[in-house]
Amino acid sequence: MASAAAIFGTTATSDRCSRRVFVTTVRRSPAFLRTSRAIKTYAALVTESSAKVIDGKATSNEITKEIAAEISKMKESSGVVPGLAVILVGENKDSATYVRTKKKGCESVGIKSYEVKLAEDSSEQEVLKHISCFNDDPAVNGILVQLPLPSHMNIQNIFNAVSIEKDVDGFNPLNIGLLCMRDRDGEPIEPLFVPCTPKGCIELLRRYDIPIKGKRAVVIGRSNIVGMPTALLLQREDATVTVVHSKTKNPEEITREADIVITAVGQPNLVRGSWIKPGAVVIDVGFNRVEDTSCPLGDVCYEEVSKIASAITPVPGGVGPMTIASLLSNTLTAAKRAYNLK
Amino acid sequence: MASAAAIFGTTATSDRCSRRVFVTTVRRSPAFLRTSRAIKTYAALVTESSAKVIDGKATSNEITKEIAAEISKMKESSGVVPGLAVILVGENKDSATYVRTKKKGCESVGIKSYEVKLAEDSSEQEVLKHISCFNDDPAVNGILVQLPLPSHMNIQNIFNAVSIEKDVDGFNPLNIGLLCMRDRDGEPIEPLFVPCTPKGCIELLRRYDIPIKGKRAVVIGRSNIVGMPTALLLQREDATVTVVHSKTKNPEEITREADIVITAVGQPNLVRGSWIKPGAVVIDVGFNRVEDTSCPLGDVCYEEVSKIASAITPVPGGVGPMTIASLLSNTLTAAKRAYNLK
Repeated sequence: MASAAAIFGTTATSDRCSRRVFVTTVRRSPAFLRTSRAIKTYAALVTESSAKVIDGKATSNEITKEIAAEISKMKESSGVVPGLAVILVGENKDSATYVRTKKKGCESVGIKSYEVKLAEDSSEQEVLKHISCFNDDPAVNGILVQLPLPSHMNIQNIFNAVSIEKDVDGFNPLNIGLLCMRDRDGEPIEPLFVPCTPKGCIELLRRYDIPIKGKRAVVIGRSNIVGMPTALLLQREDATVTVVHSKTKNPEEITREADIVITAVGQPNLVRGSWIKPGAVVIDVGFNRVEDTSCPLGDVCYEEVSKIASAITPVPGGVGPMTIASLLSNTLTAAKRAYNLK
Repeated sequence: MASAAAIFGTTATSDRCSRRVFVTTVRRSPAFLRTSRAIKTYAALVTESSAKVIDGKATSNEITKEIAAEISKMKESSGVVPGLAVILVGENKDSATYVRTKKKGCESVGIKSYEVKLAEDSSEQEVLKHISCFNDDPAVNGILVQLPLPSHMNIQNIFNAVSIEKDVDGFNPLNIGLLCMRDRDGEPIEPLFVPCTPKGCIELLRRYDIPIKGKRAVVIGRSNIVGMPTALLLQREDATVTVVHSKTKNPEEITREADIVITAVGQPNLVRGSWIKPGAVVIDVGFNRVEDTSCPLGDVCYEEVSKIASAITPVPGGVGPMTIASLLSNTLTAAKRAYNLK
């Protein structure tokens, strides 16, 4: 097949993965689809993509409905609803969008949301003061400090200040430690909360009936908030896990060994088709803003990989919505625990 | 070469790895070495073993001397010495031996040791009471509860009761969580203590100038006390780490990919020569009692693997002594922190 770049007259030197941007544009523009050439090309691309699309939006909607039903019952039987407090520091646009989305998510399921907005030059002390207030407020079951924080603040001090019972982000080191551990029967110990994005990734695999036990999994990236806890979760599910990171010498070769690949590095189109074992399942946590397009790009070259993988998450519409669903789920868990409800 | 089993008339059906037991016997019996047949066989075995022996006993002695010198200075300048309390429950013989060895280790470096021995049928409450006393005692800088504990006790309750500042075993989930985490520059966060056996393994690699960064490492076993924290430590040193466990489908193949193999499963001679990539470094944490010999066996078939690996730890005399050295080192760290010394 002629490349989409050639067909659509984009520069021949452009990365093959730039087609991913184009496909998204096609999908988003019904007007464009009306031209027969575009329809033909789009059909060709879709036919070539053998992977099942793991629909994070639909799955998240499903979970959100379940949570809403539980909260509605909770309100009826006990007269209480969960409460989530969000602390936003500074003017980062993406952060503001995330916080708005989280607030909207709360509204949609019946969680009461509380919000504190602080200026970029606020002191760490101010943030800690607000955390302390929310720690003491029984109506608040979960506390979330939106990242990134300004560079003059110590993230660890701030995370550690959040009461472990309200750490719905699951970032407290004690929670992470529990994620690592097993009881004397070798069964994984339950942490109070599982970090939201990793929880969302595993939930996608689970709801799409993708087996994890005994499979080889590669996690690309080892951040505190995604890579590391995702590896721990996969291990709890009895996968054989390898963590690939910036110091890994042959990431492509190692990734090609995996039945399940989860990427969270923040490098658009890093993972090419050649990195993937035919039939592998690929979960793309990347959400990279690229200058020449309004649409974010994943870490995975979707167009190439979707022809090789058996299932893949799109960006957007993959892991993103699942993160919010996990946050709402964690907040509900916190409230049930606080009010001693089943 | 004829097998040692054939030469020495042991049964032909015995596992090739049973020769390992024999070699140890030869080494331990100078009288036996006097017979020329034995000398020849021993020489053949040694010639065939190309791996450098990583001598845990010598390394541990080196570390112990360093610790003793530091404690001597500490005593001179501040009039204080570190204190280590050990709680032993029940009559397990191995446990009693370990506790004796630890006590002896303390004496050799100038750490004051405290010991509580409780009956097998003591209550969890009793153990917790002693922990609480040691937590409050400023002369005690480290508290160690000897494993295994009787089955009626909840290990997690007991570990969590040890003050984090005195958790020289490093088993507190908060400590384990910190082992997983990185600061905003991507640098690993320092936990208060690193679990003793994993610390000993890494220290062996370090003191033998074995590079870790960028290497592929396989950890076999995922226990709370060895496998899991060892994997976390290797990751902190920028290895690309895979954890192999009981649910891994092809452990042999995966292990053969590794430049560094660390085993902690408790299965004598599990890791055969065919599991090892030529030139790999092998650290054997296994210490398995086998009925027909007084000498413990490692997880690694030493005789086979020592011909393929570039370096290997023996059992005994490999990781074992390093665990004690790490414990003494952690106790010194705890004391320096408590007394605010550099």
